[in-house]
Amino acid sequence: MKRITETSIEADPRLPVIRTTRDFAARPEQLFRAHTEPALFAQWVGPNATTTRIERWDASTGGSWRYVSVHDGTEYWFHGCFHEVRPDRIVQTFTFEGDPDGVALETLWFEDLGDGRTRLRTQSLVDSFESRDAWLHSGMEVGVNEGYAKLERMLIDGAA
Amino acid sequence: MKRITETSIEADPRLPVIRTTRDFAARPEQLFRAHTEPALFAQWVGPNATTTRIERWDASTGGSWRYVSVHDGTEYWFHGCFHEVRPDRIVQTFTFEGDPDGVALETLWFEDLGDGRTRLRTQSLVDSFESRDAWLHSGMEVGVNEGYAKLERMLIDGAA
Repeated sequence: MKRITETSIEADPRLPVIRTTRDFAARPEQLFRAHTEPALFAQWVGPNATTTRIERWDASTGGSWRYVSVHDGTEYWFHGCFHEVRPDRIVQTFTFEGDPDGVALETLWFEDLGDGRTRLRTQSLVDSFESRDAWLHSGMEVGVNEGYAKLERMLIDGAA
Repeated sequence: MKRITETSIEADPRLPVIRTTRDFAARPEQLFRAHTEPALFAQWVGPNATTTRIERWDASTGGSWRYVSVHDGTEYWFHGCFHEVRPDRIVQTFTFEGDPDGVALETLWFEDLGDGRTRLRTQSLVDSFESRDAWLHSGMEVGVNEGYAKLERMLIDGAA
């Protein structure tokens, strides 16, 4: 299996979907913890220039979450619910409150590659190509790449 | 505005979406209560031949739900979370546990038509056309039509 070291971000040509793929030098349980324990998640999510504070967090099936990312003193709020949380997959909803009617259905898969490596795949589904493309051209790759770089350092440092 | 008396069910040609539209002789608040109060919801949802029992229900933003529909002694379980519950719109996730990896993102709109009438629109979004078409050809229209007929009688009887 080909190893992916950078984050791949791709738009599906037929579906209003964005997919990302990235391999980490960590076990699936470590990736799962980094996505479900609020103190860990807040440390790595988002671009380097933002600080994230968790307001509500229950990472279990039927739970919900809300957090704020602060950049240059401006607050950006996000919220959603956890449809399903299990060791190999998380399904959740996602709204940026600056666009309160927009909702994405997000799925994350933690795939064990063996040798202490895990492939993290994500899929974000919305109900129009216009919304998908607006998100794709919003600079989202900065948050994805910088966030995953922080996550990787956290995993290497043994913090998760 | 044209009045819709039967339920319209349509598949989007470009998106993996099913939409339904139906007008009711009731106010938006009545439709909202019939979708958020568990004792009311259990009375009308699904085909005539099934009985529904609510197992978990918190119809508020960030809440979740689970219910079982019983048909000829066989149990069909469903669950999801409430992404957002507000008077004019409900956004929730939906899984039929017989297909545990399948998830739909559902949006319901309660549109006030005046004169004590409300248009109920729903949208169900999944991540493939195959899943959407399988659902469309599953006989779903029986549950939609019989369920909404029960809902209409409940509203006319003043039970909601």
